[in-house]
Amino acid sequence: MKLITAIVRPEKLDSIREGLEAYGVQGLTVSAASGYGRQRGYTEVYRGAEYSVDLVPKVRIEVLATDDQTDDILDVLITTSNTGRAGDGKVWTVDVHEAIRVRTGERGAAAI
Amino acid sequence: MKLITAIVRPEKLDSIREGLEAYGVQGLTVSAASGYGRQRGYTEVYRGAEYSVDLVPKVRIEVLATDDQTDDILDVLITTSNTGRAGDGKVWTVDVHEAIRVRTGERGAAAI
Amino acid sequence: MKLITAIVRPEKLDSIREGLEAYGVQGLTVSAASGYGRQRGYTEVYRGAEYSVDLVPKVRIEVLATDDQTDDILDVLITTSNTGRAGDGKVWTVDVHEAIRVRTGERGAAAI
Ligand SMILES: Nc1ncnc2c1ncn2[C@@H]1O[C@H](COP(=O)(O)OP(=O)(O)OP(=O)(O)O)[C@@H](O)[C@H]1O
Ligand SMILES: Nc1ncnc2c1ncn2[C@@H]1O[C@H](COP(=O)(O)OP(=O)(O)OP(=O)(O)O)[C@@H](O)[C@H]1O
Ligand SMILES: Nc1ncnc2c1ncn2[C@@H]1O[C@H](COP(=O)(O)OP(=O)(O)OP(=O)(O)O)[C@@H](O)[C@H]1O
Ligand SMILES: [Mg+2]
Ligand SMILES: [Mg+2]
Ligand SMILES: [Mg+2]
Repeated sequence: MKLITAIVRPEKLDSIREGLEAYGVQGLTVSAASGYGRQRGYTEVYRGAEYSVDLVPKVRIEVLATDDQTDDILDVLITTSNTGRAGDGKVWTVDVHEAIRVRTGERGAAAI
Repeated sequence: MKLITAIVRPEKLDSIREGLEAYGVQGLTVSAASGYGRQRGYTEVYRGAEYSVDLVPKVRIEVLATDDQTDDILDVLITTSNTGRAGDGKVWTVDVHEAIRVRTGERGAAAI
Repeated sequence: MKLITAIVRPEKLDSIREGLEAYGVQGLTVSAASGYGRQRGYTEVYRGAEYSVDLVPKVRIEVLATDDQTDDILDVLITTSNTGRAGDGKVWTVDVHEAIRVRTGERGAAAI
C-alpha cells in the first residue's frame, strides 16, 4: 500500500477530486499548506495576481492506495493538477506499513 | 520506529489523547484536515447536523512510536476513536528512517 | 530520496528557512500544527508567555531531499531550530518511493 501526497494549487482541488472520483478513488484527505519550489514563490501567480511573498498557498491531498492503483492515481493527479506554469506542484509516495478502517477494524487493502 | 497517523472525528480528540496518555504516549502532533471516505461525506454527521458538503472536518493525530509500542497504540487509537458510525476514520503507519529530538540531539528510540 | 519532517517553534521558521536556503534547499512545504512532547505543553513558553493549554502551536516543515543531502539538511534543521529550551521540536525522515514535479513530469532526484 502507498500513501500518495500531492501539494498542488488550491484552485485545482475540484478538478483533481473529479478526476480521482472518476478513476474510482473512494476517499481522500485535504489540508492547507503553503510553500515554494525553485522560483521561491516570487514569480507564482495566485488568484490572478502575482504573489508578493514567498510562501504560496497550496493544498495537500493525501490518498491511501493499493500498490496496483498507485501508478494510475499518479497519472490522474499529474494530469488534473497541471497548468504548465511554475508552481503546479509536487507529488510523492511512501510505503504504508499498515492501514486500518476504524469503524470496522479492517486492515490492508480492505481498509481503504 | 513508526509514524502512526490517524484521521479522526474532531470531537474524539480529547478521549483519544486521554487514552494515549494512559498508555504512556509522551508526545503527539495534531493538525486540521478534512476529507471523505466511502460515503463521500454526504451521510456523515458533524456537531449534530448532517454535513451538507462532502469534505467533512477531521483532525490528524500523529504519533512517533517504537516498533514495540505500535500495535498497542493502534489498539488505543481504534478503541478511543470508534463510534460505530460512518466516518470514524482511517489510521495508517509508515516506517521512520530517523527521528531526532532537537534540544538534545538524541536519535532513535531515545528521541521520542 | 527522503521526506524530512520537522515540527518546530513557529518563531524559528524564518531562521530555519534562511539556513535551508543557504545550504541549497530549493523547495519546502509549511503547514500549521500543534502538539506536545514530554512536558505536555505545560512548561512551554510561546510568544513570551507560558502556554496555559497543552497543545502548543508549532509549524511543520517538510523537505524532499536526495539521500545524499539528508544528513546535511538534518544538521541545518537542528542547528537553526534549537534554543536549548523544552519544546524545540522533533525531526524525522521517511523513505520516499517516488517523487514527481507536476509541471514537467520529471521523477526522482530531478523532480526536487
Ligand atoms: N523540495 C521540496 N520539498 C518539499 N516540498 C516542496 C519541495 N519543492 C516544492 N515543494 C512544494 O510544492 C509546491 C509546488 O512546488 P513547485 O511546483 O513550484 O516546484 P518546482 O520544482 O519549483 O516546479 P516548477 O518549476 O514547475 O514551479 C511548493 O509550494 C511546495 O509546497
Ligand atoms: N483512501 C483514503 N485516503 C486518504 N484518506 C482517506 C481515505 N479514506 C478515508 N480517508 C480519510 O479518513 C476520513 C474518515 O474516513 P471514513 O472513516 O469515512 O472511511 P470509510 O472507509 O468511508 O469508513 P466508514 O464506512 O466507516 O465511513 C476521511 O474524512 C478522510 O479524511
Ligand atoms: N512522540 C511524538 N510523536 C509525534 N509528535 C511529537 C512527539 N513528541 C513531540 N512531538 C511534536 O514535537 C513538538 C515538540 O516536541 P518537544 O520538542 O517538546 O519534544 P520533547 O521530547 O518533549 O523534547 P524537549 O524535552 O526538548 O521538550 C510537539 O509539540 C509535538 O508536536
Ligand atoms: Mg516552482
Ligand atoms: Mg466513510
Ligand atoms: Mg517537550
